[in-house]
Amino acid sequence: MSIPTIQWVSGAVRIIDQRKLPNQLKFLTCKDTKALWSAIKTLAVRGAPALGAAAAFGVLLGIKRIKTQNRKVFDKELKKICNYIGSSRPTAVNLFNALSDMEDVALKNPSASVDALKKKFKVKAMGIFNHDKKVCRQMGANGAKLVKDGQTLMTICNAGALATVDYGTALGVFYSAKQKKKRFKVFACETRPLLQGARLTAWELQKQKIDVTLICDNMAATLMQQKKVDMIFTGADRIALNGDSANKIGTYNLAVLAKHHKVPFYVVAPLSTFDTKIKTGKSIPIERRDPNEVTTIAGKRTAPKNIKVYNPAFDVTPRNLITGIVTECGVVRAPNAKKIKRLFK
Amino acid sequence: MSIPTIQWVSGAVRIIDQRKLPNQLKFLTCKDTKALWSAIKTLAVRGAPALGAAAAFGVLLGIKRIKTQNRKVFDKELKKICNYIGSSRPTAVNLFNALSDMEDVALKNPSASVDALKKKFKVKAMGIFNHDKKVCRQMGANGAKLVKDGQTLMTICNAGALATVDYGTALGVFYSAKQKKKRFKVFACETRPLLQGARLTAWELQKQKIDVTLICDNMAATLMQQKKVDMIFTGADRIALNGDSANKIGTYNLAVLAKHHKVPFYVVAPLSTFDTKIKTGKSIPIERRDPNEVTTIAGKRTAPKNIKVYNPAFDVTPRNLITGIVTECGVVRAPNAKKIKRLFK
Repeated sequence: MSIPTIQWVSGAVRIIDQRKLPNQLKFLTCKDTKALWSAIKTLAVRGAPALGAAAAFGVLLGIKRIKTQNRKVFDKELKKICNYIGSSRPTAVNLFNALSDMEDVALKNPSASVDALKKKFKVKAMGIFNHDKKVCRQMGANGAKLVKDGQTLMTICNAGALATVDYGTALGVFYSAKQKKKRFKVFACETRPLLQGARLTAWELQKQKIDVTLICDNMAATLMQQKKVDMIFTGADRIALNGDSANKIGTYNLAVLAKHHKVPFYVVAPLSTFDTKIKTGKSIPIERRDPNEVTTIAGKRTAPKNIKVYNPAFDVTPRNLITGIVTECGVVRAPNAKKIKRLFK
Repeated sequence: MSIPTIQWVSGAVRIIDQRKLPNQLKFLTCKDTKALWSAIKTLAVRGAPALGAAAAFGVLLGIKRIKTQNRKVFDKELKKICNYIGSSRPTAVNLFNALSDMEDVALKNPSASVDALKKKFKVKAMGIFNHDKKVCRQMGANGAKLVKDGQTLMTICNAGALATVDYGTALGVFYSAKQKKKRFKVFACETRPLLQGARLTAWELQKQKIDVTLICDNMAATLMQQKKVDMIFTGADRIALNGDSANKIGTYNLAVLAKHHKVPFYVVAPLSTFDTKIKTGKSIPIERRDPNEVTTIAGKRTAPKNIKVYNPAFDVTPRNLITGIVTECGVVRAPNAKKIKRLFK
């Protein structure tokens, strides 16, 4: 199981253009940082771990164009590139963590020549890319242990191969469980406004021959009321030190429903999604997106003109609603700052 | 404040074609029961109280075509007409209550001539129509007493003028509060899959100059988390004797969220929405609709082909999540069978 969501091919970033799914599987090649910035902004590529790889590759695209051999000038340009890429989307911390990892290459090699540094950047970016592939499979294996034969699982948005380099976080759990011959069914919440659940998760799971049923977000409650959901797995865009987790809008809703119906609620995310610099979810910046995402669907207006709209792209699920966070290092049950600090030792 | 959702004009039923809103305000004239049945089925006219008036007018359309003067034959034909109209949509009980009221006219006048009976039917249907206008305004006044100046209210689907003859149930509360010069804001949940909140409620409230903000259904939780919602008002399609209330899918979700965040949750419905023959919500039939409503938006496919879909049109909110039911006879707080029986004495 592998979907080539993002790759470094012949000095450019090749991504699956997710705006065109599920109707068309098209690839988009970004040859400079501006093209990549735009691909990130318009969600041609999205998903916290995929954005980490995209940011690293974005730096490679940027530094390719720096002609100087002067390290001081180079480092200044590098800073500009990182700031620019960082201005694309504010919530997913993987993007900033990857940029910081890339900047560290320059910081840790103050006397390296520009050419030598460029080679080190390439190695670092490929390292971030390959690390994502590896940790997704580890998270998948760790999460799959939680899945019992015959269960029905639920997920929201797309925390799949399309949200990572090629395998997925929450959906990686499903892929791993399937590989282990466990039988299970999945309900995919469509995830308004941009329908990543309907367009991407339904597409991915169908492609991987997993038994998936699509629902509107507001139908999850009635399924839980009917005891038709055994567990919920979601991804995350940023996790605070105490375990509060930002993820696609609607995730907090599911977490409240899960609490009310006593359904275990798991977040699946690599260590690169943790932001241990912030203590709680209150400090996570939440992106507000264009009202047109809500009022216009597939190019057609579905709400009156000039209507006011509130369109936050993410919400924050407090740690006390999270049964456990599945990471590449194992499952952190009832997450708190103490347990999360231990992950980074 | 009055929107002519459904009217009896020159021997035909004239309705606002709600499938065309908010982009076009068009009227549709149904001259026979078949046309009306189709208008109900395809949601050109919808909303429990409006369906009550539609059913009564549907009977008028049907009996117009009965040529016999033989009461036995007439009564048989009447039964057929009522069964046919009743087959359009299963959940809203107002439809069945109106049909039963119409049938009662024949039962209570066994020796009336067919012509005399037809006149009585007309009187009965106009009675149902006018009663709806009156009770909506009474419910509005009763509900408006609950609204405090400066509050922010939330609603789902369309329980407005477009769901009744001309004024609304939940939205009637807002209209009445506005008339009483109370200042308040409203969040309207868009209500997937058919977006009655975005298309109809946003349109109605905007038209009535009420401060309305549109959200996707999955954004309600984060607003409540931020303490931005003071009260929730919804309509109902059928209320069981114990107070369990069926309403548009997503209502139960809101009720669970309201409970978690300690936000008062009110159902606004006339006595004609109660089904005192059934003890609890478990016996309410829930309509399952076409998967295409979920997978296709505005004619464009937004999910992969052959994807499985679960598409219930309604859910049931148990009485213990309902702060009160606002009726034309007052507010039934913490509803139960004993209190509801009292309404019908």
